[in-house]
Amino acid sequence: MNEKDEFELLLEKVFELLEEKRYRAARDILVEENPADTAEVIEEIMDEVGLDEAIIVFRMLPKDISVDVFSYIDTDDQIAIINRITDKEISYIIDELDFDDKIDVLEELPANVVDKILEKTPKHERRQINTFLNYPDNCAGTLMTPDYISLQKTMTVGEALEYIRKEGMDSETIYTCYVKEAGRKLYGIISLRVLVTSDPETPIADLLETDFVSINVYDDQEEVAETFQKYGYLSIPVVDKEGRLVGIITMDDIFDVIEEETTEDIERMAGVVDSSNQEYLDISVFKHVKNRLPWLLVLMLSYVITGSIITHYEAALSSVIALVAYMPMLMGTGGNSGSQSATLVIRGISVGDLDTSDALRVLWKELRVSFIIGVTLSAVNFLRIYVFEHQSIGVAFTVCAAMIVIVIAAKCIGSMLPLIAKKIGIDPALMASPMIASLTDMVSVTSYFMMATMILHV
Amino acid sequence: MNEKDEFELLLEKVFELLEEKRYRAARDILVEENPADTAEVIEEIMDEVGLDEAIIVFRMLPKDISVDVFSYIDTDDQIAIINRITDKEISYIIDELDFDDKIDVLEELPANVVDKILEKTPKHERRQINTFLNYPDNCAGTLMTPDYISLQKTMTVGEALEYIRKEGMDSETIYTCYVKEAGRKLYGIISLRVLVTSDPETPIADLLETDFVSINVYDDQEEVAETFQKYGYLSIPVVDKEGRLVGIITMDDIFDVIEEETTEDIERMAGVVDSSNQEYLDISVFKHVKNRLPWLLVLMLSYVITGSIITHYEAALSSVIALVAYMPMLMGTGGNSGSQSATLVIRGISVGDLDTSDALRVLWKELRVSFIIGVTLSAVNFLRIYVFEHQSIGVAFTVCAAMIVIVIAAKCIGSMLPLIAKKIGIDPALMASPMIASLTDMVSVTSYFMMATMILHV
Repeated sequence: MNEKDEFELLLEKVFELLEEKRYRAARDILVEENPADTAEVIEEIMDEVGLDEAIIVFRMLPKDISVDVFSYIDTDDQIAIINRITDKEISYIIDELDFDDKIDVLEELPANVVDKILEKTPKHERRQINTFLNYPDNCAGTLMTPDYISLQKTMTVGEALEYIRKEGMDSETIYTCYVKEAGRKLYGIISLRVLVTSDPETPIADLLETDFVSINVYDDQEEVAETFQKYGYLSIPVVDKEGRLVGIITMDDIFDVIEEETTEDIERMAGVVDSSNQEYLDISVFKHVKNRLPWLLVLMLSYVITGSIITHYEAALSSVIALVAYMPMLMGTGGNSGSQSATLVIRGISVGDLDTSDALRVLWKELRVSFIIGVTLSAVNFLRIYVFEHQSIGVAFTVCAAMIVIVIAAKCIGSMLPLIAKKIGIDPALMASPMIASLTDMVSVTSYFMMATMILHV
Repeated sequence: MNEKDEFELLLEKVFELLEEKRYRAARDILVEENPADTAEVIEEIMDEVGLDEAIIVFRMLPKDISVDVFSYIDTDDQIAIINRITDKEISYIIDELDFDDKIDVLEELPANVVDKILEKTPKHERRQINTFLNYPDNCAGTLMTPDYISLQKTMTVGEALEYIRKEGMDSETIYTCYVKEAGRKLYGIISLRVLVTSDPETPIADLLETDFVSINVYDDQEEVAETFQKYGYLSIPVVDKEGRLVGIITMDDIFDVIEEETTEDIERMAGVVDSSNQEYLDISVFKHVKNRLPWLLVLMLSYVITGSIITHYEAALSSVIALVAYMPMLMGTGGNSGSQSATLVIRGISVGDLDTSDALRVLWKELRVSFIIGVTLSAVNFLRIYVFEHQSIGVAFTVCAAMIVIVIAAKCIGSMLPLIAKKIGIDPALMASPMIASLTDMVSVTSYFMMATMILHV
C-alpha cells in the first residue's frame, strides 16, 4: 500500500470518529502520525467537516506536537486557526515555530495582532523579526531564516563538530555551515559532509569553499528558485549589498515558490490575474470577478475590429450565406493552432530552453510545421465540404485556401508574440491563448473574406 | 551584481575567446567556474556557436572536472557529446558519474552502445545497472540511486560516525542513513543531524526512526514529487513490494520531475501531446506536427456541429445579416470565460486544493461569478451596439442577452469538465482552452440564434 492510500484510510477513520464526536480517539490516532499527515488531516477537516471541529482537534494535540503540525498547515488555514485560539496558545505556537515559518505567519496577520504577539518577545528578536517583515513581497528576504550555524575561521574540524553538537538543535540546517570575516561579511562555507569525513585536527580554513554561490536579499523568489534548480544545493546563503550574511534559504522552501510561480504563469496564460496565492474556494466571488473581468473586457473590445471587418464584407456575405457556417471552424482552428505555438514558446522561455535570440530558428520551424498542418487540415476539409456537404467547389476552395493561410499566420503570431513580449520586457505568459485567439480571429476573418473575394468574386 | 548578470558576463567572455579561436584561454576561465555554470556555458556554445566548438572546449577540460560538468548538462546534450567522443573518454565519464546520473545517460543511449560501455564494468555493477535500466519510464525506480549509507542496528553513534567517515565519499548523501534488518528489509532511518548531536556512546537503535515515510519503486514520479513536497525531507527511501530497501531518492532530483510534469500539463492544456521531454528546437518538424495535429483535427471536426447549427439558422441570418458581425465576439468571449474557469479548476486539482467532492461548491461560485461578469460585459456591449454603432434595439438586446447566457454556460462548462474528467479517470489538463472553446462555440451560436429568434422574431 502506498503513502497515498494509507493517508486516505487515515482520513476516513478520523472522519468517522468525528461524526461520532469521539474527538479524543481521533486525537490519539493523529498523535501517532507524521506531523505533515496530521496537518493535512486538519486541513481536510476544515474543508469537509468544519472549522470548529478542526479547531477542537488541533487544540487537543499535545503542545509540542501542535507546533510541528501547525508549521505544515497552509498559511490561509494557519490564520483561520490563529483567529480562533487564545492569546496564550498563539504566543506558545509563534514562539516555538522555526524562524522562517514564524515570519510567514506574522506576515499574514494584521499589524495590531503582530504587535500584541511580539510584546513578550525579547527586544533583540523583535528587532530581527521587524527587519524580516519589512522585506518586499516575493523577494529572497521573505524566504530566508537567520538560524544557521556560524563557525570561526580558526576552528579545527573537531572544534567545529563540537560546536555543532552543542548549537545544532536550534539551527534550520546543520548540513552547511558558514564562516564570516570582519564586518559580518560571508567568507566561506563548509558542508557537514566535509567536516564528518575529514580529520578532526585539520583547520577548517583549509577546507573552506570561498568561491560560493550566494543570493542577494532583494532577488526575486523566481530567481532564487532558478538558482536552486541550477546548482542543486541544499541551502544557499543570502547576502546584502555589502556581502554581509543576513540569512540562509533551504531547498525545501523552494517547492512552494515553484508552485506559486507556476500557478501565476498558468493563470496568466488563461487571462486570470491573481496575486493572492489563495486557494480557489477561499477566494471571494468579487475577488474572482476582479481577477477575471479586466482581460475579458479588453479582449471583448478587441472584437470591435473583427466585427467591423465582417461588416465591411457584409455584401459578400449575404450573397454567399453558406460562408458563415465555416467561420467558427476557421476561427477556432486558427486560435488553437496559435495557442499551441504560443504555449510551447512560453514554456520554452520559462524553463530556459528558448531566448529572444532564437526567434528566427523558431519562426523557420513554425513555418514548416504550420505548412504541413495547414495542408493536411485543408485536405480533410475539402473532403468534408465538397464531397460530403455538396457545397460548390468555389466555397470548398475558399475555405481550404483560407485554412492554410490562417494556420500559418496563427502559428507565426503565436510563436513570435511571446518572444517579442520577452524582448520588450512584458511577461511572455500574457501572450497566450486568449490574446492569441483574439488576434488570430481578426486574421482569420480577413483572410477568409479576401479568399472569398478572390475565388468566388463576390 | 547577482549570479545571473555574472553568468552573462562569463558567457560573453567565453564567446569572444571562441571567436578568436582561443580555446585554451576559454578552458582556463571555465576551469575556475562552478561546474553547473561551466555546463550551462557548454550548452550555450552548442546552441549558439556549434557542436564542434562545444566538444573542443569540453574535451579540453581536466578529466575530473569534465565528469562533474557532464553531470550538470541536459540529457539531450549529453547524448550529443557521447556521440562525438572516443570510447575511452565515454568509459571514463560513465564510470565516474554518480549512479543515478549514470542511469539517466544510459537510458537514452541505444542498447548496443550501452552494451559496449558496460563490457568493462564489474559483473555485480553491470547486473545492478541492468536492473535499474529495466524500471518503467517515469517511475520512482528511474530516479533513485543505490549509493546510500547503510548502518548496522548494533552500532553506537560513535561507530556509525566512524563508518560514515570511511564510506561517506561514495554515497549520494550522508545526511540520512539507513538500517536494514533480515532479508534486506528497511528497519529504520537516522539523520546525520541526530548522530552529530548525540552522545557517541548511545546505541543508534535508541535513536532510530522506525515509523518512516517510504516510496514504492513503481510509484509514478508525480507521486514521488508530491511526497517530497508534502514532507520536505532531503531524501526518501525506495522499497519494493516486500519492503526491501532498493535505493534512495534525493530532493535535488525532484526539481527536474516537477519541471517535466508541469511542462506536460501546460502542453496538454494547449492541445499539444508530447512525451519526449525534448527542448523545442531539438524536436523535428515532423515530430512537432505529430504532437499537434491530432487535437487540431479532432477539434476542427467538432466544428461540423457548430457549422450545422448555423446552417440551420441560415434563413434568420440572411434576414438580419448584421448579427454575423457579433458572432466572433460572442464566441471569443465565451471561449475566454470558459478557459479561465477551466484553468483555475485544473490548477486547483493539480496542486491539491480542489477535488471532485468540491464540484457543487465550485459550481455555485462560478454561477455567481459568471452572472456578475455576464451582466457587466452585456452592459458595455449595449452601449457599444445601441449607442455607438446605432444598431436596432432588437439587435442590441439579442447580443446582450446571448452574452449573459454564454458567459454563464461557458464558466459552468469550463469549471465542471475538468472535475468530471478527474472523476472518470481522464487527465483534467485535457479539458482546457481548446476543448472548452470548441464546446462553448457550439453553445454560443445556439444561444445567439435562439435569442435572435425570440427577440427579433426572425
